[in-house]
Amino acid sequence: MAKDKKQPRPKAETPKGFRDYFGAEVTERSEMLRQIAGVYHRYGFEALESSAVETVEALGKFLPDVDRPNEGVFAWQEADEEGKGDWMALRYDLTAPLARVYAQNRNDLPTPYRRYAMGPVWRNEKPGPGRFRQFYQCDADTVGAASVAADAENCAMLADTLEVVGIPRGDYVVRVNNRKVLNGVLEVMGLTGEDQRAAVLRTIDKFDKVGEAGVRELLGKGRLDASGAYIDGVGLSDAQAEPVLAFLTSKAADNAGTLLKLMVAVGESRVGIEGIDELAEIADLLAAQGYGPDRIVIDPSVVRGLGYYTGPVFEAELTFEITDEKGRKQQFGSVAGGGRYDDLVKRFTGQEVPATGVSIGVDRLLAALRAKGRIGQEAAAGPVVVTVMDRDRMADYQAMAVELRAAGIRAEVYLGNPKNFGNQLKYADKRNSPIAVIEGGAEKEAGVVQIKDLILGAEIAKNATLEEWKDRPSQYEVPRDQLVAKVREILEGQG
Amino acid sequence: MAKDKKQPRPKAETPKGFRDYFGAEVTERSEMLRQIAGVYHRYGFEALESSAVETVEALGKFLPDVDRPNEGVFAWQEADEEGKGDWMALRYDLTAPLARVYAQNRNDLPTPYRRYAMGPVWRNEKPGPGRFRQFYQCDADTVGAASVAADAENCAMLADTLEVVGIPRGDYVVRVNNRKVLNGVLEVMGLTGEDQRAAVLRTIDKFDKVGEAGVRELLGKGRLDASGAYIDGVGLSDAQAEPVLAFLTSKAADNAGTLLKLMVAVGESRVGIEGIDELAEIADLLAAQGYGPDRIVIDPSVVRGLGYYTGPVFEAELTFEITDEKGRKQQFGSVAGGGRYDDLVKRFTGQEVPATGVSIGVDRLLAALRAKGRIGQEAAAGPVVVTVMDRDRMADYQAMAVELRAAGIRAEVYLGNPKNFGNQLKYADKRNSPIAVIEGGAEKEAGVVQIKDLILGAEIAKNATLEEWKDRPSQYEVPRDQLVAKVREILEGQG
Repeated sequence: MAKDKKQPRPKAETPKGFRDYFGAEVTERSEMLRQIAGVYHRYGFEALESSAVETVEALGKFLPDVDRPNEGVFAWQEADEEGKGDWMALRYDLTAPLARVYAQNRNDLPTPYRRYAMGPVWRNEKPGPGRFRQFYQCDADTVGAASVAADAENCAMLADTLEVVGIPRGDYVVRVNNRKVLNGVLEVMGLTGEDQRAAVLRTIDKFDKVGEAGVRELLGKGRLDASGAYIDGVGLSDAQAEPVLAFLTSKAADNAGTLLKLMVAVGESRVGIEGIDELAEIADLLAAQGYGPDRIVIDPSVVRGLGYYTGPVFEAELTFEITDEKGRKQQFGSVAGGGRYDDLVKRFTGQEVPATGVSIGVDRLLAALRAKGRIGQEAAAGPVVVTVMDRDRMADYQAMAVELRAAGIRAEVYLGNPKNFGNQLKYADKRNSPIAVIEGGAEKEAGVVQIKDLILGAEIAKNATLEEWKDRPSQYEVPRDQLVAKVREILEGQG
Repeated sequence: MAKDKKQPRPKAETPKGFRDYFGAEVTERSEMLRQIAGVYHRYGFEALESSAVETVEALGKFLPDVDRPNEGVFAWQEADEEGKGDWMALRYDLTAPLARVYAQNRNDLPTPYRRYAMGPVWRNEKPGPGRFRQFYQCDADTVGAASVAADAENCAMLADTLEVVGIPRGDYVVRVNNRKVLNGVLEVMGLTGEDQRAAVLRTIDKFDKVGEAGVRELLGKGRLDASGAYIDGVGLSDAQAEPVLAFLTSKAADNAGTLLKLMVAVGESRVGIEGIDELAEIADLLAAQGYGPDRIVIDPSVVRGLGYYTGPVFEAELTFEITDEKGRKQQFGSVAGGGRYDDLVKRFTGQEVPATGVSIGVDRLLAALRAKGRIGQEAAAGPVVVTVMDRDRMADYQAMAVELRAAGIRAEVYLGNPKNFGNQLKYADKRNSPIAVIEGGAEKEAGVVQIKDLILGAEIAKNATLEEWKDRPSQYEVPRDQLVAKVREILEGQG
């Protein structure tokens, strides 16, 4: 078209921080989401797919009093005549939309409302290596249940989910902690100022990274970090810092022992004791359901989320080692977490509604299963490619593909320009095809087809001596009516 | 928090034109997408999930030379210091992103590239009843295949897909037409001016709505439409209009007859004859694969898309009648369509790349299956609800739910405030629960549980006389260890 000539060609690029997912990356993820949804559904959770777009007002973090409320979210203003259209934004998580949905439909939804949601969320943040501005979340939340039975249930459901997607028992542990116990510890310490409490919380969040000694320094005078920079401390005395460290390190040989240590750490604090009672109740409920401490265990060193959540928190860790790009062995680490947060819909309705949820890091879990070789084989297998030797006999080739597909075998006819047969085999190679089917004029006349084992062929080409090559042919001639049987036999042989 | 008090409460509402999907609406759709993906995959198509966000430049319809390129798409400008950030937008379909992805990765992707994509797209249009600004598309395209074998394959795949998702043979037909034949007709008519050709194309697109007589009027002097408004015609003479009508009405008793009539309509036009040859080839290829005209048929009255596509076009229609809200019977109509478009990536690379695709209207297809009662039963069934008679025995109730789930039965414990038992049964009712399980102190002592058939109970309450009520109890007492067996028996009885 004439117009095209005047304009420079657009760049064919994803926007910065976004990416595309191809083939098995997509199908493996959707299969995992389907498995997870199956578990959630069996537990009585209902699916919810809220709109990807929310009003900025409902999302709540960003207000239309600035020109572009574009911090953290992708937002835009509805066009209207006077430039006063509503501000809208892409959701940045699945919890804020749940709050809006629950507030909007609270008279129609059952209470408690158990819902799960899976889908992309968007963050307007600076992209970095492995850090994208669109990624999947996979959440289950129970809204309107004050009982810690709901928290226990989420822990159990998380353990079940991990096993269903392919993490065997022994390769994971769900660790449970409680924000209330920490609040008790802060009470015992006499920390009532918001600033100092917040500083202690921030420090605790670094426990995973800097360990016991690091937290001790950071609660006190400060610490020289790995880069040589000096990080100011909270300024507590050693004696003051002690209860925090006692709390963080109170994991004992069994749950009873841990709870006992926590009792010491919280002293007389009412909220602390309440928190310990809750942990004890969770442990009892789980034990009664057959979830022993080998799968779900009380562990006060779980700190992630302690700043955000208001009650029980938990985290699922994979306990096996993987080898990273640099050949170093390391624990795989956290793949899911959750906890109780009790002011979900208050912004909308003024009412406090208790809620507790779990969120699974689907992409991390997929990476773990790939690292262990537990997924990736079947999904990556290409189709059987029926090559085209004679373009006038396309119907014959299509009929072969139909037969193969009817037998449940993934198959396609080569649909590019068939002139150069080498290109067809190159195509099959690029598709990761296990088998190519060939029927030229001579074969047609003789009523046979050639079936080429491309996996074996590639192996032989790589490794075999001439002798072996002769002994292990990678191409077979079979009668046309044995096409499906032979293809199946070869596929089974390839495993 | 103090801040909350100062601000008015936000409205809990979806943005205008957006909606949420609940429970079975979500699971039925994802199950259908899974089934469709299964067929596409078996045909050799690879999944692609491109980012939801594209640069406005790559999307192509909208250029950053206006302040807000916000027509038709949701767009925003990346924040940067100088207000010169890139414009980005939500994808409005799955084809424009395919063009970008193919252009971006053309050296790594196989050619032909068969890909399928499923996901939401966004349109910044005025919302209306049943017309949303976010909806699903479900596409399969073959990029880089010039052969009409690719078009035939897409028709066959569409027929297979409809059967797999639950539309039996006989309840659908895929109708095939070809833009080239229409071009031949326009050539024969001597219409070479772009304006007049465009006017004829627009008129043809109304054939579905106004029929043969209407198109005749619109090609000529004009027409009084149903609202009483006069629509200007294209201004052709009756003789000039005749070939168009001959083309549109050339469907005969069989494909051969149709092709014969088309031959008359295109006369000597080379492009017209080429188009007919392509249709004949498609019909032959499909016949050889077992797709007779009862499933896929040449039908020149298919006009949707003739303006957009460049070669073969096709449309899948459901042929059964449904009863609309007003009790009128009507054909269900179109649920999918597609065709060939040959300048997919030219904008990016300058090269013309042939492509052909199919798009399934998943939400319409779901509506059709619901209208026929073919989906909706299982997915809508709520969980078995284990009620809480004694909140100190939560572990007992959880253990029951665990047993039921282990037997594959959807089950949950009531997690709201258990004080008022009536609320628990109301909850079960709202959840559409088939069964409630009850174990009070007396039952616990006697080692039994009460199992309440809620479906039967509701029926009895509605219809039964007292006699029937006595004969058909809806509540059973069974030993605790027969819980799972009895629940399963009742569920099976409920069908």
